[in-house]
Amino acid sequence: MADMPSSVDILEEGPREAFQIEPGPIATADKVALIDALSATGLKRIQVASFVNPKKVPGWADADAVVAGFAPAPGVAYQALYFNPQGLHRALAFRDRLTVVGSITLSASEAFSLRNLNRDRAGQLAAMREHVAVHREAGVPVTRLSIMASFGCNFSGDVPVRRVLDTVADGLAVADETGARIARLSLADSMGWETPVRTQALVGAVRERWPDLPLTLHLHDTRGMAIACAHVALKMGVASFDASVGGLGGCPFAAQPGAPGNIATEELVFLCEEMGIATGIDLDALIEAARLARRIVGHPLPSALVLGGGLAAMRRAAAGA
Amino acid sequence: MADMPSSVDILEEGPREAFQIEPGPIATADKVALIDALSATGLKRIQVASFVNPKKVPGWADADAVVAGFAPAPGVAYQALYFNPQGLHRALAFRDRLTVVGSITLSASEAFSLRNLNRDRAGQLAAMREHVAVHREAGVPVTRLSIMASFGCNFSGDVPVRRVLDTVADGLAVADETGARIARLSLADSMGWETPVRTQALVGAVRERWPDLPLTLHLHDTRGMAIACAHVALKMGVASFDASVGGLGGCPFAAQPGAPGNIATEELVFLCEEMGIATGIDLDALIEAARLARRIVGHPLPSALVLGGGLAAMRRAAAGA
Repeated sequence: MADMPSSVDILEEGPREAFQIEPGPIATADKVALIDALSATGLKRIQVASFVNPKKVPGWADADAVVAGFAPAPGVAYQALYFNPQGLHRALAFRDRLTVVGSITLSASEAFSLRNLNRDRAGQLAAMREHVAVHREAGVPVTRLSIMASFGCNFSGDVPVRRVLDTVADGLAVADETGARIARLSLADSMGWETPVRTQALVGAVRERWPDLPLTLHLHDTRGMAIACAHVALKMGVASFDASVGGLGGCPFAAQPGAPGNIATEELVFLCEEMGIATGIDLDALIEAARLARRIVGHPLPSALVLGGGLAAMRRAAAGA
Repeated sequence: MADMPSSVDILEEGPREAFQIEPGPIATADKVALIDALSATGLKRIQVASFVNPKKVPGWADADAVVAGFAPAPGVAYQALYFNPQGLHRALAFRDRLTVVGSITLSASEAFSLRNLNRDRAGQLAAMREHVAVHREAGVPVTRLSIMASFGCNFSGDVPVRRVLDTVADGLAVADETGARIARLSLADSMGWETPVRTQALVGAVRERWPDLPLTLHLHDTRGMAIACAHVALKMGVASFDASVGGLGGCPFAAQPGAPGNIATEELVFLCEEMGIATGIDLDALIEAARLARRIVGHPLPSALVLGGGLAAMRRAAAGA
C-alpha cells in the first residue's frame, strides 16, 4: 500500500457543495446542466444533490427536481447527501437513479460536534447506532466510516492524531455492534486545518493501525494546502479523494466568507495525470465544466487551473511544430 | 543538502510583479504603503520596483518615485529589477536604498527566447557577456544565474531536464569567461509548467551535477501546483524561494488572463512554519499586507490563505479555553 496507486477514484462533489452555499437562486436547469456536463468528462461518481431541510438549506429545495432531471450516463454512479431518515427516504425514492449507501459519521473533535450538532461523543455514538438501524430497516448497506475534523478544529485547535485513531476505533465498534460492514474510511478536513505534514502523519498512523482499510481523503483548500496534501497522500498510496469542480463550494467554517472549499477536481486530475496516475477523466472537458460552473454561479472560482488552462493543447502544438 | 532546511530565505516580489501587470493606474503612495507594510512583517528581501521602459510598462513609470519613497527598515534588503544598462544606472542612482546585484539570465527553451527576446542561444550568450561587462564597468557584482523556462515552455512544450542542465552549464561558462562569481542558481517556471514530479526531477538532477550551488526556485501557480512543488523542494533541502504576497502579479504567458502568478508568500510561509522551517515572518501581519494589496489593486487575489486566514488565533483561543 505504500506505493503510488496506478489509478485514482474521485467523488465529484461540486454540484452538492456549490448549490448548498451559493446565495442563488440558481435555476434547476442550470444545476442539471452542470451535472450532465460533469458526467461527460469521465468522472465515475458524482454527488448531485442534498436531501436536507429546505428551510435550512434553501439552495437544495429543488433536490428532487434536480435528481429527476439529470440524464443518467452509463457507468456513472450518482449519489446524494442526507443526514436523517427523511433524507434517506427522499433519496430512496430515486433508487433507480441514485446509488444509495450509508455512512457512519463521527467527529474527531468533540468541541466541533457539540457546536455543530449539540452532541458529545456518547451522543454521536448513539445517533450513529440509530442511523445504522434506520438504514438496515430500509435495506441500505452502511459501508463507509467518515471522520470529521480529522485535521484540526476551529474550536479545540490541533486534534491529536491519537484522537482521530480513537474516533475511528469508536466508529468501527459501532459498525461491529450494528452489523455494518465498513469498506472505506474517509478522513475529512472539515475546517481547513490540513497541511502536508499533518496528512503524512495521519495517513501513516491510520495505515499502521488498519493496513487493509481503504482510505478516502476529503480535503479543503481553505489555506491553499490541498494540492500539496493530495500529493503526499498519493505518494503514500491513497487512491480515493472527494473533490469539487472549480473548487466550487466554499468552507462554512473558514474565518472569512469566500474562502475556498474542497480541492478543485481539475487540479487533482492534473496532478494525478502528471504523476502518471490514471484518472479516466478528460481534463480539458473538466475545465470546460468548471467554466460552465463559473457562469452558473456568476463569480470567479478558487481553481487556478480553470484560469491557467491545461497543457495538452500546447504539448500537441509543440509536438506538431 | 538532502535534508529539510532549518530556515528559508524568501525574496518578496509582490510589488514589482503586481504593478507591472495591473491595469492601474495605482498611486505611487499606495505602492510605497505596500512596500512599507511588507517590510514590517519580517521579510528580509523585497523587490520594490522595475526600472523598465515606461512606454512598455506604464505601471512602473514611477519606479524612481517609489524607490525614493519607501521607508528603509533595518535589516531589510530592497532590490529592483532591470534588464539593460539604462535600468542598471537608474538602480545605481539609489545605491543608498537598494541592494544592486547582477544576474546572468538564460532561457532553457530557445523557442521562448526567440519569441520573447528575438535571441537564439548564441544571441543569449553574447547578450549575457555584454551584460556582465556593463556590470563590471559599474562595479556591480554578478552573482546569480537564472534559468527561465526551466519547467516547460508554451512554444516548445516539455523542456528536457538535460536541456536545463546544458543551459546552466552555458551560463556558468559565461560566468567563468567574464569573471562573474555565481553564488546562486535560480530555476524559474516562467510559463506555469511546474509539477511536483518535474520539480523533484529537476532539483535532483541539478543537485547531482552541482551539489554545492545554492538553489532558488521561482514558482508560478498558474495551474495550482506551486505549493506542492515548494513542499517537494523544501523536503529536498531547497531553502530559497521567490514569492509574491497574495499571489499578486499574474502570469503574462498563461493561456488566459487572470491566471495566478508567483506562489503566494503567505502560503509558502504557512507551509514552512507548519513544517517546522523558520521564516522569521509574522504570518498574520503578512496576511494583513496581502489584504492591503487587495484593496490597492481593487480585485480578489489568488491566495486562498488571504481568504481563509491563519490558524494562530484559533490555536491561541483553543489553548486558552
